[in-house]
Amino acid sequence: MEKFIRVNMKDLSIKVESVPEKYLGLGGRGLTSQIVYDEVEPTCEPLGKYNKLVISPGLLTGTTAPSSGRLSVGAKSPLTGGIKESNSGGTAAQKLARLGIRALIIEGEGATDKFYILRISKDGQELLPADEVVGMTTYKVAHTLQEKYGKKAAVVTIGPAGEMKMAMASVAVTDMEGNAARHAGRGGLGAVMGAKGLKAIVLDDTGIERIKPQNPEVFREAARSLTKALTEHPITGQGLPTYGTAVLVNIINEAGALPTRNFTTGRFDRAEKISGETLAERAKARGGKTGHPCHGGCVIKCSNAYHNEKGEYVTSGCEYETIWGFGANCEIDDLDAIAEMDRLCDEIGIDTIETGTTMGVAMEGGLIPFGDAQGIIRLLKEEILQGTVLGRVLGQGTATTGKVLGVTRVPVVKGQSIPAYDPRSVKGNAVTYATSPMGADHTAGYGVTANILNVGGKVDPLKAEGQIELSRNLQIATAAVDSLGFCLFIAFAVLDRPEALDDIARMVNAQYGLNWTVNDIVELGKNVLKTEVEFNKKAGFTAADDRLPEFFREEKLAPHDTIDDIKPEELDSVLSF
Amino acid sequence: MEKFIRVNMKDLSIKVESVPEKYLGLGGRGLTSQIVYDEVEPTCEPLGKYNKLVISPGLLTGTTAPSSGRLSVGAKSPLTGGIKESNSGGTAAQKLARLGIRALIIEGEGATDKFYILRISKDGQELLPADEVVGMTTYKVAHTLQEKYGKKAAVVTIGPAGEMKMAMASVAVTDMEGNAARHAGRGGLGAVMGAKGLKAIVLDDTGIERIKPQNPEVFREAARSLTKALTEHPITGQGLPTYGTAVLVNIINEAGALPTRNFTTGRFDRAEKISGETLAERAKARGGKTGHPCHGGCVIKCSNAYHNEKGEYVTSGCEYETIWGFGANCEIDDLDAIAEMDRLCDEIGIDTIETGTTMGVAMEGGLIPFGDAQGIIRLLKEEILQGTVLGRVLGQGTATTGKVLGVTRVPVVKGQSIPAYDPRSVKGNAVTYATSPMGADHTAGYGVTANILNVGGKVDPLKAEGQIELSRNLQIATAAVDSLGFCLFIAFAVLDRPEALDDIARMVNAQYGLNWTVNDIVELGKNVLKTEVEFNKKAGFTAADDRLPEFFREEKLAPHDTIDDIKPEELDSVLSF
Repeated sequence: MEKFIRVNMKDLSIKVESVPEKYLGLGGRGLTSQIVYDEVEPTCEPLGKYNKLVISPGLLTGTTAPSSGRLSVGAKSPLTGGIKESNSGGTAAQKLARLGIRALIIEGEGATDKFYILRISKDGQELLPADEVVGMTTYKVAHTLQEKYGKKAAVVTIGPAGEMKMAMASVAVTDMEGNAARHAGRGGLGAVMGAKGLKAIVLDDTGIERIKPQNPEVFREAARSLTKALTEHPITGQGLPTYGTAVLVNIINEAGALPTRNFTTGRFDRAEKISGETLAERAKARGGKTGHPCHGGCVIKCSNAYHNEKGEYVTSGCEYETIWGFGANCEIDDLDAIAEMDRLCDEIGIDTIETGTTMGVAMEGGLIPFGDAQGIIRLLKEEILQGTVLGRVLGQGTATTGKVLGVTRVPVVKGQSIPAYDPRSVKGNAVTYATSPMGADHTAGYGVTANILNVGGKVDPLKAEGQIELSRNLQIATAAVDSLGFCLFIAFAVLDRPEALDDIARMVNAQYGLNWTVNDIVELGKNVLKTEVEFNKKAGFTAADDRLPEFFREEKLAPHDTIDDIKPEELDSVLSF
Repeated sequence: MEKFIRVNMKDLSIKVESVPEKYLGLGGRGLTSQIVYDEVEPTCEPLGKYNKLVISPGLLTGTTAPSSGRLSVGAKSPLTGGIKESNSGGTAAQKLARLGIRALIIEGEGATDKFYILRISKDGQELLPADEVVGMTTYKVAHTLQEKYGKKAAVVTIGPAGEMKMAMASVAVTDMEGNAARHAGRGGLGAVMGAKGLKAIVLDDTGIERIKPQNPEVFREAARSLTKALTEHPITGQGLPTYGTAVLVNIINEAGALPTRNFTTGRFDRAEKISGETLAERAKARGGKTGHPCHGGCVIKCSNAYHNEKGEYVTSGCEYETIWGFGANCEIDDLDAIAEMDRLCDEIGIDTIETGTTMGVAMEGGLIPFGDAQGIIRLLKEEILQGTVLGRVLGQGTATTGKVLGVTRVPVVKGQSIPAYDPRSVKGNAVTYATSPMGADHTAGYGVTANILNVGGKVDPLKAEGQIELSRNLQIATAAVDSLGFCLFIAFAVLDRPEALDDIARMVNAQYGLNWTVNDIVELGKNVLKTEVEFNKKAGFTAADDRLPEFFREEKLAPHDTIDDIKPEELDSVLSF
């Protein structure tokens, strides 16, 4: 039986509810956003008692659909003040699904001085005092709890940053090796979990049967067809498994869209030193890995394990956006140092993108010089982790850091920082950054596809023409993908082979006995976006929030000398369906 | 001839313009808000090149109308992100008016490394390097510039906070003794001036003739009649001259509406020690003063000069809201220490209200304990004045400080802090705080009148009934008063003696040869508010911004156990005319 688990952190009660009919056919982002919309007052204090943290596996998560193990974490964001769904890999989503849990709803006011662990297994669910892991960094929390509750349990946890309610705090999820290396990073949802007084969730699906589709034959055939599409596509079948997402460093740099020195120029002269090629070479030489999956059943395997010179594990999932944020954005060319920063962020429990952009702005504000890798490591270890006043400023993210340091070139939309693709030279992303209800988010509508990778068509990245439609379609597709539990990267294959959408509809139908067509998937995506936009409107967002910062209109980006020239009235049309 | 002076801080050019016809009949807030509306892009970066600082004397300023020497400073606020008019006494407004300047418009991008002084006299206007006063605190700036440019010149200056672009930076104005003790405090307009690279303005009206009304007879008679109303009213004729605004400490405490310990309770058990009565007693014993005017021609004279135990001048205009902010709000009962804090704020150039509430929130966040007067003095001297990271956090005001320190009980509306009257027990003020386009501001619609002082009728302060209309009418009246250049305190007399409005209309007519009726004054107020609301709407404000913080709905305020219970939909009706 599928169920909701509702946990009240005020009176420590847990209720098991059957899934209300209106939520049938919803999962992942579609479900978290709908529950947040239905149950959270849009103007509430994000760290107060009226916010709720909602965790949901995708609709196909836990099945044998390829690369479908994504977890959605939703709430009102303390970073943006709007609705938020942050998405993570790792092993938790599949266990939640197998435990029959459609949504975990964490609500009520957390104690100010006490943290808890929520443990769920086939025997039920219980809240336990978290005293033994309070204050711990995420890897240690995961290892401690797995030691105690079973090596195969998935652990969802916050680090010290979440306990301190920092607006860039992430929610960490253990990977297949038991490392807390996968993160629902964006939007500060770790702070919401911290405000609820929930340190960690332990998910143990031992003794639970595998999920069975209603029509196994059809399901198997459709899954096989989608798998074929993924393994045959050059990006999901070759580029990503070979180099990881860091394959983009050279590509985006070549395109002149790699934001360098806090978005001052579009090329980093030392990009090669932090490229995916360099990373893969080191993985080979040092005993690390590329082609590493973040959850069982992933056929793309874009993750990696980064080892240091001594061949010791440093971090996993050292992604393009992280490498960019601490690398080109801060003019740092030392991949070993960047891997260390990635690990530190994972341990502290903070979003690597928000942290990277915060450091860029801090450098512009004169806190430390550009290029100062050891300076960043010191700020992470001695300020953010320790929760000093400076650490808490940085922990509030890019916008607050800019404000405090008097910096006016602050790359944020709706309070969330702009990631690794300069909007002036990847204008499909510009539209997404400006209009996504999530705040600036490359994953919300990845214009890089048609702009640079020639996937799903070709739209000139340097011109305004065609970007509105491109971003709109990608945002709709993404909202659906995030709801189904698929990794966003399946989009590469689907965009070039639209029949794959049929495979997905067939899987949904075979799993749940439904009659979806491809059009229903599109409608799902649209409905999710409508719900999110409506929440934000009630929270006080207007068209004025759907704009890039002023300096993108003012400063030309080398080498293409582009500026932000998307017309405001066109931005207003993106999600008005 | 009346003129605009337009100063471009990018190319250091100065233009003298005749006043466009559409601005005739506008002055003070009416004029600054209209120019900001007409010339400033509402979504612009407040500290960027598209914002403008507009300074204007009231319509009757410079005449012999009693208590009419107020100065309006306007811009898009870096604190609220909305339109802002901040109002100050002192000698600058009358000199501007006598110099024939309806508005000073400071525009363009300031240099990042250079500050200027704008000097205006009968011989014209010039920009001079400010090197000799850069980094100086305000009193010293004023004394240095008066030494150089004439003892009688008015000086408008920013302190170090404005240079550092802190969002609580004020614009200081010299008083009749040449002290930089009067401030356009609210909304961080000192930061806008700082961002423009303008350190100070010197206004010398030597050799300029007095302003003559078109009909001196009528003017004189009307001015006399208004003066009589002011001197005969118990508040403007007795209470304010005798005790200063601090007379309110005991009154508001008695009413149970004195926010204590960061808005935790409504009474401060040691209020007597920081009361107006204590202040007046000390003034008498130590050689200080009450009944001190902030500008020539003021018949209310509510200001004071506070001396220390040795009989030395400490500060001037130690106002109720300042005494409350550092006093009851921080549980400090030492008036000498509070006077020192007031002086420090004036010297650094920061708003005493925003600073007081920031300290209250910092205390709640554990930075220093409640009651720690020396702690506040240290934070002012060693952190804010020095521009340390902590100082810059505090300098960003209450909202940012709350965010950084993880405090959720943060008393702000539209990013600006709630002043000295708890909205739960002065519900007329609650409506004003929530709906004023200025952000939380007691002076925008002072419900205390009918709620507590029995002026202009009687509306129960503890009930929601009648507050919407009360606040609406007061907001309209205030917008008119701020446009005419009158001190807001004339409202006490006008509310109880509406014929005084005729006197005002007659003065406008006699001065400018117009035909205003009392209704035109009301229309003026309405139009100013409409303009401001419209600017904010374009800047992205919605009904969600017209709300008090959540905790006022949740926590009962002792002794009356009141909560915020004004209906949201009623709030939305306040300024929709």
